[in-house]
Amino acid sequence: MEKRSPGNLKFHSQKKFHSPRPSEKELIFGIRAIIEAIKAGKEIDKILVQRELNNPLIKELYETAKEHNLPVSKVPEEKLNQITRKNHQGAISYISAVKYYKIDDIIHAAYSKGETPFIIVLDRITDVRNFGAISRTAECAGVHGILIPDKGAAQINSDAMKTSSGALNFIPICRENNLLQAIKFLKDSGLQIVASTEKAEKSIYEADYKSPVAIILGSEEDGISNDLLKVADHLVKIPIFGKIDSLNVSVATAVVTYEVVRQRNIAAG
Amino acid sequence: MEKRSPGNLKFHSQKKFHSPRPSEKELIFGIRAIIEAIKAGKEIDKILVQRELNNPLIKELYETAKEHNLPVSKVPEEKLNQITRKNHQGAISYISAVKYYKIDDIIHAAYSKGETPFIIVLDRITDVRNFGAISRTAECAGVHGILIPDKGAAQINSDAMKTSSGALNFIPICRENNLLQAIKFLKDSGLQIVASTEKAEKSIYEADYKSPVAIILGSEEDGISNDLLKVADHLVKIPIFGKIDSLNVSVATAVVTYEVVRQRNIAAG
Repeated sequence: MEKRSPGNLKFHSQKKFHSPRPSEKELIFGIRAIIEAIKAGKEIDKILVQRELNNPLIKELYETAKEHNLPVSKVPEEKLNQITRKNHQGAISYISAVKYYKIDDIIHAAYSKGETPFIIVLDRITDVRNFGAISRTAECAGVHGILIPDKGAAQINSDAMKTSSGALNFIPICRENNLLQAIKFLKDSGLQIVASTEKAEKSIYEADYKSPVAIILGSEEDGISNDLLKVADHLVKIPIFGKIDSLNVSVATAVVTYEVVRQRNIAAG
Repeated sequence: MEKRSPGNLKFHSQKKFHSPRPSEKELIFGIRAIIEAIKAGKEIDKILVQRELNNPLIKELYETAKEHNLPVSKVPEEKLNQITRKNHQGAISYISAVKYYKIDDIIHAAYSKGETPFIIVLDRITDVRNFGAISRTAECAGVHGILIPDKGAAQINSDAMKTSSGALNFIPICRENNLLQAIKFLKDSGLQIVASTEKAEKSIYEADYKSPVAIILGSEEDGISNDLLKVADHLVKIPIFGKIDSLNVSVATAVVTYEVVRQRNIAAG
C-alpha cells in the first residue's frame, strides 16, 4: 500500500488532464484454464459457468473458486455464447483490472502508520461510471480503502479504470463475500459505522468523523440494505433544498467524504 | 422562478429514481425559418451559418441574432451537411432544452425574497454530462442560478437534461456573451467572487460563504481563465491527499457547493 498521510498534502487541479492507464478487460475461456489462472494467483472478477454442466472438472472449478473466495454464477449456455464466439467449454471468467486487498490488512496498515482509518463501503452500486468516479474522489481524499460485495457490485473493468482517471491503480479495493460480516469486523476494529441515507434524522454535519470511520453509501435505486442500516452506529443525510430530491451517488459520496476531510483537517490544524 | 428558500428543506434520497423528462434536441433549418423562430421567442442555443453566404436574407439573420444576443458561428458547408441531410439552405440552429434567464433578474429575485444569492459560474465546461451533473447538484443545494458563457459552454441538449435528472427544468441557467462583464455585475451587486482553483493558497474551508457569493469553476483541461481569476475576491482550493491530484469538475463543484450549504445552515441554526 502507498503511504497516504495528510502530510504529503497536494491540492486539486482543474487543469491537468490525467491520461488513464486502462488495463484491458480480459477474459479466460475454458474450465481448465480458469482453474490454472486461479491457482496462479490471477485476480478474477467473476466466473460464469454453464448451468447444466456436471462433471469432475467443473466440480474442481467450484472447489478451487470456493477456496479462493471467488464468486461463481450459473448461467444458460446462450449467455456465454453472447459473451464470446470462442470455444468457452462452458466457463468464462473475467480478469479484474485491479488487485484486491483484504480489509483487515487495510485497517491494520492504517493503524500501524498512526493514521485514522477511513473506509468507504458501497452497497450494490453497480454503475461502472459511478464506481469509477467514487474511486477517484476517494483516492483524492485519502480514503484507505473501498469495501464492496463480491456479487452485485460494479464490474471493475477498463471503463471503471478510465472514469477513475487511473485512481483504481492506487486506491485499495476490498471485495467481501458477506458485506454485513465485513462491516461487523470494521466495527470490532474500532470504526464507527455511518450510513448516508435519506432515512436519517440528522444531517451529515451533525456527526463527528474524527475517530476511525466507515461510511456506507447505497445504490440510487434501492438505497442501503436494511441489514446494513441496522448495524450502523449513525444514519446521516445530506440536506437537499431543491425539487430534485436526490444527488447522484458519486456526488453524495464526495460531499460526505469531504465533510470527513474537513473535520479531520480543521481539527488537526 | 421557483421558490427555493432553506425553509422548505428536503433531504436526499439515494433510493428514488427520477425519470428524466428530456426535451428532445431540436434543430431548425433554413434562414427564414430561423429568423421567424427567433422573433417568435424560441430559445435558440446556437446558430450555424454557411461561411460563404452573403445575401440580404443572411444579413437579416445576423442582425436579428445580434438583437437577441444569440451566438452565430460561420462554418463550412460540409459541417452543415454532416449535421443534417435535409435542405438546410445554409443555416441550422439548435433549440435549447431550457429557457434562459437574465442574471440580473435572478439576483434581484433572490434579494427580494430575502435570500442570500448563491450563483455558480462555469468557465468553459464543455462536457455535457459534467454540466448535467453540476445542474443536478446545484438544484439540490438551492443554488439560485448557473452562469455560463454563450460560446464554449456545454450544449444544453437532451443528454444534459437526462444527466441532470430533470434538474435543468428547475435550476435557472443564465447565458452571457461576456462572462467577465457578468461577473463584474455580480460583484457590483454585492456578491463576493470565489474561484475554485489549484492556484489558490488557502483551502475552501478557510473562506466565508455566508454573504452573497458566486463560485467560479473552470474546465478540467484549462482551469479558470486568467481574466476571471483576476477579478475574483478569493481563490480557494480543495485539499487533495492522493496520487491522482484532481477531482472531477462535477465532484469539485459539489464539494465547494456543499461547503456553502454547511456554513449557511450551521450559521443559521
